[in-house]
Amino acid sequence: MIIVDELKNRALILNSRPNGYPDDSNFKLIEIDIPDINPGEFIVKVLWLSVDPYMRGRMSDKKSYAPSVEIGDIMVGGAVGKIISSRNSEFEVGDLVEGRFGWQEYAISNGSNARKLTIQEADISKALGVLGMPGLTAYFGLFSLGKPIPNDTVVISAASGAVGAVVGQLAKLAGCKVVGIVGSDTKASYIKDELNFDHAINYKKEDVCNRLLDLCPYGIDIYFDNVGGEILEAVLENLAFRARIVVCGQIAQYNLANDEVAYGITNFRNILTNQATVEGFIVSRFAPDFPQALSYLESLFIEGKLKTKEDITYKLENTPEALLRVLTGKNFGKQIVKIA
Amino acid sequence: MIIVDELKNRALILNSRPNGYPDDSNFKLIEIDIPDINPGEFIVKVLWLSVDPYMRGRMSDKKSYAPSVEIGDIMVGGAVGKIISSRNSEFEVGDLVEGRFGWQEYAISNGSNARKLTIQEADISKALGVLGMPGLTAYFGLFSLGKPIPNDTVVISAASGAVGAVVGQLAKLAGCKVVGIVGSDTKASYIKDELNFDHAINYKKEDVCNRLLDLCPYGIDIYFDNVGGEILEAVLENLAFRARIVVCGQIAQYNLANDEVAYGITNFRNILTNQATVEGFIVSRFAPDFPQALSYLESLFIEGKLKTKEDITYKLENTPEALLRVLTGKNFGKQIVKIA
Repeated sequence: MIIVDELKNRALILNSRPNGYPDDSNFKLIEIDIPDINPGEFIVKVLWLSVDPYMRGRMSDKKSYAPSVEIGDIMVGGAVGKIISSRNSEFEVGDLVEGRFGWQEYAISNGSNARKLTIQEADISKALGVLGMPGLTAYFGLFSLGKPIPNDTVVISAASGAVGAVVGQLAKLAGCKVVGIVGSDTKASYIKDELNFDHAINYKKEDVCNRLLDLCPYGIDIYFDNVGGEILEAVLENLAFRARIVVCGQIAQYNLANDEVAYGITNFRNILTNQATVEGFIVSRFAPDFPQALSYLESLFIEGKLKTKEDITYKLENTPEALLRVLTGKNFGKQIVKIA
Repeated sequence: MIIVDELKNRALILNSRPNGYPDDSNFKLIEIDIPDINPGEFIVKVLWLSVDPYMRGRMSDKKSYAPSVEIGDIMVGGAVGKIISSRNSEFEVGDLVEGRFGWQEYAISNGSNARKLTIQEADISKALGVLGMPGLTAYFGLFSLGKPIPNDTVVISAASGAVGAVVGQLAKLAGCKVVGIVGSDTKASYIKDELNFDHAINYKKEDVCNRLLDLCPYGIDIYFDNVGGEILEAVLENLAFRARIVVCGQIAQYNLANDEVAYGITNFRNILTNQATVEGFIVSRFAPDFPQALSYLESLFIEGKLKTKEDITYKLENTPEALLRVLTGKNFGKQIVKIA
């Protein structure tokens, strides 16, 4: 039996709001006692933390789709871990769970924000990527909003990232032509050679607008937008008739300093002339259909049809650095932090 | 019997492409013979021409949803007129018709681009407005894309125009709260006092973003966008959760000089955070459902539930000036030209 009383929890709290990119000073590492748990609760020892672009939004006090993290509160985020103590009959000691446990080494949950994992222990970090929120985001964004049909041309930004890589592979399986936009030659090779995308564009080296014109002679039917800004503008120049633009992320706009203005999209008119549809979404909207989608993703993963790459940072205290990697595109694959 | 051989037709052809706003030099008035008609054809004496913002797009050679007018070709446009000679068994001399007859005094048609009008002769100009393309645009944009439900907050730009005035009245009939954005106090009074809109904003005098914040405390559910640009940006600051933006026109972008860049939308990100939908449309997409929509609009019009205002210019040669009025917002109500 684990003597919980002897354990100390370490957590990262929000210390200040960033102006532009976040840095270490925006966080503070604290050590706290793990309280006794009440009936219905359990304690999770966190094994892996997820690091995702949306976290930048939570650090800001600007109005968004979810509440901001308050100064002094533990940073939010998904994690997987193992239950080490439980007073909840549905969650037993030893169970592997995924949930919104936040940036800490131990978390207390009543089960409402957790799901039990059925995949083998070696793969549990995938519950933060392809078999978790990013995979679900890819699935619902592509199928429910993008509505692909065979031979559609699908363009994806941040294409080697946790969401983009899944979108591209699902679109290929759906019979689409897939063009990925990435920020390095290594990432370009990866999505073409490993993930079987048809084409890759390195936006740091190539003229995205002209390359899209070359690669998408019939126009872009679906654009899965993770970044916004200039790349969105380049895509809007190359839309097919009745294109669908799935707005999943706008990372180019997330790290503006307080006095910076976001890139201005000047060719919005193309949405009219091409009778295009643009839709923003947050994956939680599709929660009732998560089990069905996860079962599909899991079967593809087990069959080896859904490849995944992880970028691992070690130790809780390095989580801020991992977040900065994601926000600057330095990560290569799904960014996670190994806690224990 | 009318001796057609003795008639001369006068037409306005596109003489050059405008750089910025069009002017008289972009058009040329020509006099041409009316040829003999072939079996299946008829001759229309044009009574009223329609003048609409989309015409600016046809004068440009930029790629759009419809082909450009070539230099030397008669300008395109809708018109209503009376048949004065016919070799088509479905269209008789004396019939009143609406069709895409172009900027000319007489037109030859085989009936494929014409519909017979059943409304009384005094009202036939309405077939170019509330009971024609602008009315249909309002109807399908609002109902098929905007999907209003009672108590939705609907904001409309160019709200006293041919399309906007119908959108607002239909939205009021559907139980919505309606805010119109216009460019003068006279227009503001008109949409409030005559058309029963809940509120009006004069964008030339008021801060649109702050006024929308005041008038739409629960956010904007539907934005019917006729203008784009800065007003679109102000609306994007005030969206409700799952707002629908109906992109019908982007008149702010139509008259850019060749070296001018359109206004840049910097808050596209709000489409994501509000999970909003943006959709561009051209009314022709809904052609199969036109009869049903027209029958609804006609019944409302006859019952006096759909008010309409016309801005009349006289004589074919003044059509370019009428177009400039529309493009600069100087018209007040549906702009038409009385030809005969």
